[in-house]
Amino acid sequence: MEWIYNSIGRRIPKSVDGKLLKPFRGAFTDPVEGNVVSRAIPLTRSRGKINKVVSNWNELFDNLQPKSGMTVSFHHHLRNGDRLVNEVMRLLAERGLKNLAVAPSALFPIHDYLVELIKSGVISHIEGSMNGQVGVACSKGFMKKTAVLRSHGGRYRAIQDGDLHVDIAFIAAPSADPFGNANGVLGKSACGPLSYSLADSLYADKVVVITDNLIPYPCVPWSIQGGNVDYVLTIDSIGDPNQIVSGTTRLTKSPTQLMIAELTARFIEESGIMRDGFSFQAGAGGISLAFTVFLAERMRKKNVRASFVHGGATQVLVDLLNEGLVSTVVDLQSFDLGAVKSMRDNPRHIESTPFTSYCQHAKGCLANMLDVAVLGATEIDLDFNVNVNTHSDGLLLHGTGGHSDAAAGCYCTIITAPSFRKRLPIIREKVTTVSTPGEVVDVVVTERGIAVNPKRLDLLDRVKNTTLPLINLPDLMTQVHELTGIPDNPKLGERPVAVIEWRDGTILDVVHEVLD
Amino acid sequence: MEWIYNSIGRRIPKSVDGKLLKPFRGAFTDPVEGNVVSRAIPLTRSRGKINKVVSNWNELFDNLQPKSGMTVSFHHHLRNGDRLVNEVMRLLAERGLKNLAVAPSALFPIHDYLVELIKSGVISHIEGSMNGQVGVACSKGFMKKTAVLRSHGGRYRAIQDGDLHVDIAFIAAPSADPFGNANGVLGKSACGPLSYSLADSLYADKVVVITDNLIPYPCVPWSIQGGNVDYVLTIDSIGDPNQIVSGTTRLTKSPTQLMIAELTARFIEESGIMRDGFSFQAGAGGISLAFTVFLAERMRKKNVRASFVHGGATQVLVDLLNEGLVSTVVDLQSFDLGAVKSMRDNPRHIESTPFTSYCQHAKGCLANMLDVAVLGATEIDLDFNVNVNTHSDGLLLHGTGGHSDAAAGCYCTIITAPSFRKRLPIIREKVTTVSTPGEVVDVVVTERGIAVNPKRLDLLDRVKNTTLPLINLPDLMTQVHELTGIPDNPKLGERPVAVIEWRDGTILDVVHEVLD
Repeated sequence: MEWIYNSIGRRIPKSVDGKLLKPFRGAFTDPVEGNVVSRAIPLTRSRGKINKVVSNWNELFDNLQPKSGMTVSFHHHLRNGDRLVNEVMRLLAERGLKNLAVAPSALFPIHDYLVELIKSGVISHIEGSMNGQVGVACSKGFMKKTAVLRSHGGRYRAIQDGDLHVDIAFIAAPSADPFGNANGVLGKSACGPLSYSLADSLYADKVVVITDNLIPYPCVPWSIQGGNVDYVLTIDSIGDPNQIVSGTTRLTKSPTQLMIAELTARFIEESGIMRDGFSFQAGAGGISLAFTVFLAERMRKKNVRASFVHGGATQVLVDLLNEGLVSTVVDLQSFDLGAVKSMRDNPRHIESTPFTSYCQHAKGCLANMLDVAVLGATEIDLDFNVNVNTHSDGLLLHGTGGHSDAAAGCYCTIITAPSFRKRLPIIREKVTTVSTPGEVVDVVVTERGIAVNPKRLDLLDRVKNTTLPLINLPDLMTQVHELTGIPDNPKLGERPVAVIEWRDGTILDVVHEVLD
Repeated sequence: MEWIYNSIGRRIPKSVDGKLLKPFRGAFTDPVEGNVVSRAIPLTRSRGKINKVVSNWNELFDNLQPKSGMTVSFHHHLRNGDRLVNEVMRLLAERGLKNLAVAPSALFPIHDYLVELIKSGVISHIEGSMNGQVGVACSKGFMKKTAVLRSHGGRYRAIQDGDLHVDIAFIAAPSADPFGNANGVLGKSACGPLSYSLADSLYADKVVVITDNLIPYPCVPWSIQGGNVDYVLTIDSIGDPNQIVSGTTRLTKSPTQLMIAELTARFIEESGIMRDGFSFQAGAGGISLAFTVFLAERMRKKNVRASFVHGGATQVLVDLLNEGLVSTVVDLQSFDLGAVKSMRDNPRHIESTPFTSYCQHAKGCLANMLDVAVLGATEIDLDFNVNVNTHSDGLLLHGTGGHSDAAAGCYCTIITAPSFRKRLPIIREKVTTVSTPGEVVDVVVTERGIAVNPKRLDLLDRVKNTTLPLINLPDLMTQVHELTGIPDNPKLGERPVAVIEWRDGTILDVVHEVLD
């Protein structure tokens, strides 16, 4: 295997599985040229009603004629409640298929079942985010081929560009009609948006909608359009509602998390980013939720309204919308039932898509319009590179999500993280894996202070007359090392088990095999 | 010029303007194969806010660098209130450009100004519907090249297939934000949907949004997505609100029209098409509105609810929605302010697109799901071919709209027309121009009786035990000829001035030059 170094000094193989890799050369040096991948023209050659309903799995697969080596895709809007991925893969295994590439937008612990299909050769590799034991299996070298991790925007781009060609897209739909129109806001398995599968519906060779709530035509809203759908199958249940939406909006009680959240809100106010009409993104994690609550308090006090908030939507954001503190919630993924209901009922709570929110192959995306994105990390290094994919033991345990997309677009990327977890320092000299390059990371907030990327002279200028506890990353690392000691490097093999794509398809880093 | 005959016996040139034509071979024999046209990948190579606003026309055109011979496109949602087409074309003429192809979804009498640009060579030809003097100019041979008329679905297909390549799309937007997101439901020029320009926004080389209501990001709903837009220009007024939406929902007082409307409603009830969950399409013309009112009366009496109604939306349809007689209004074009408001406020009144409603290059479209479409005609012939484009004097005065798309999809196409107009018989041995082939035309309703296409044995069977006044077309023609005499054929030259495309891109017919 030949290796080269990309522009951030990560060692990248020249090719994997016979495919040449393009090394990362910088966040805004997209090497892609030419045209969006062409897709076959579907033809309607009949008059009158079109009923795409198949009566059972056998009929579906007899129509689809899946073959070994194909790529099948799924969305992850049902998260850890999803019942579709395992069922489809089990049935494909029963049919004797091998070497399938599975291209979900993400996998969750519920999909740990796939590990045995990886081991038995039914699945050759995953192109998608892995949260859980599938990631561990990948790390341990169980996949025949190299996994590919992409951001949400990167996945849309890869499908558009033909890097990721999907043979069959299986779309779990909380509601659908016999023509294939589908949405995620109605039905017992309601999950909010369905748009992680939008690109799949537009570009896959065959598109299947699988629902547990078949309603009369027309199913509106039609997040997935029937004009792009080949078959519709009804099953008893596509998901476990309790796992689809968590329903929890309880605030963290961790003093460290609360302190980081408060510091982040304070940074945004004191840097002047929090002004009328600003916009922000924050997720559904402990620090993010607390941060949102603290920022809202500051907005109320200063009588500041946000133009929009973006991201995984929660009841916390919905409350801000209803209060009038934000004028629009742009929702790519709903994290609780409050968000699902709000997206269904409130026209100012709008479903987004990975194209709209995050795609670099567009004339700008919503991420570009964000003033600030508050994002997480498993590690951060002295170059401000961020790891969200692996832990310090080298295990691949998380997907990239919208992390690199939001960072690449927004005016100010803030990474929040405790300075150490379980006696493992979060600030590293070099991160185990680069998920998002330091070029688009501006601020790191820990409970020990705030580090501003020295390249962001404008941000440093904004905070120079404040009392914010500023610190630099080398000092912070030293402080933490005094508490934790310097951790051992993980035992990694040479073999790359996964590549981490930047949103333009170049390779940021590889994940190496973890040796026992 | 070499000529051949297509499958319905119309004489078609082998090529026009150096382009080979595909003769029509039947409604469902789509000869298109291969892939959707590929479009250039747009790249975002910057971080942070993207402001696409240009301050004036000069700055816009300096950026766009329009050139002679280019194709520019527009939508017609502002109908006869549109102020954009004339202004853009005037400015392009001022810049000295020649031989521009203009590709509007439709033109109206307000655009008669373009005739002088056609005569002066600024405009080489129109690819789009022409209502008014531009059509007359076309008929009289003033255009250098051959005009192309397409249905709404056919226009979307032609753009997808690369038959119609748009260099610059100018999208008049009642509301837009600085990023280019736009909709038609907000603002003083609100017109309802914007989706006639959806394909243009997706496939044109350059996309410009022009608005008289620039609002803060994000403009939601975003019928046109900013990720596809290059520039945004604000002007004082994109249209005359009084001409955009007519606001009139007065019923016709013409006894003939009322009789035809009533007979149509009666046919739909007595044939059994009007049953719970059925769907229908009707336009905004005199007969159509009256038909809708009469059908609604019959639905109320029989306690029948429609699943959806489709088409140009009006207050009449909105009233049915609010009453609960129909469960969904699917709107491709709003004809009055009541429809605009309803689409804005009622989630069961949904914006459609030419892809969703009408495109043959899809896995079915909404037209396929229609039970019945009630459509108009300028002429109908003994083969049930329908003319909606020319009058009996040969003048090209109307576009095809969704006529052929709805007919091709629905279970039952009903053509309503008086048996004669101004002493000109509507039933002809051969129509002057075939807009929709008789293969997809099932019923003709006139004040003198109802003719069912003899090929539709199933429909004849449905009505055989009713008291409906059935008649056949030859007898009807004879009856009318006794009143009107047999009209002279128009004086037509050999030169084809326009081709009429079937929705799959094959040529149904040509419009010949009208000699004085």
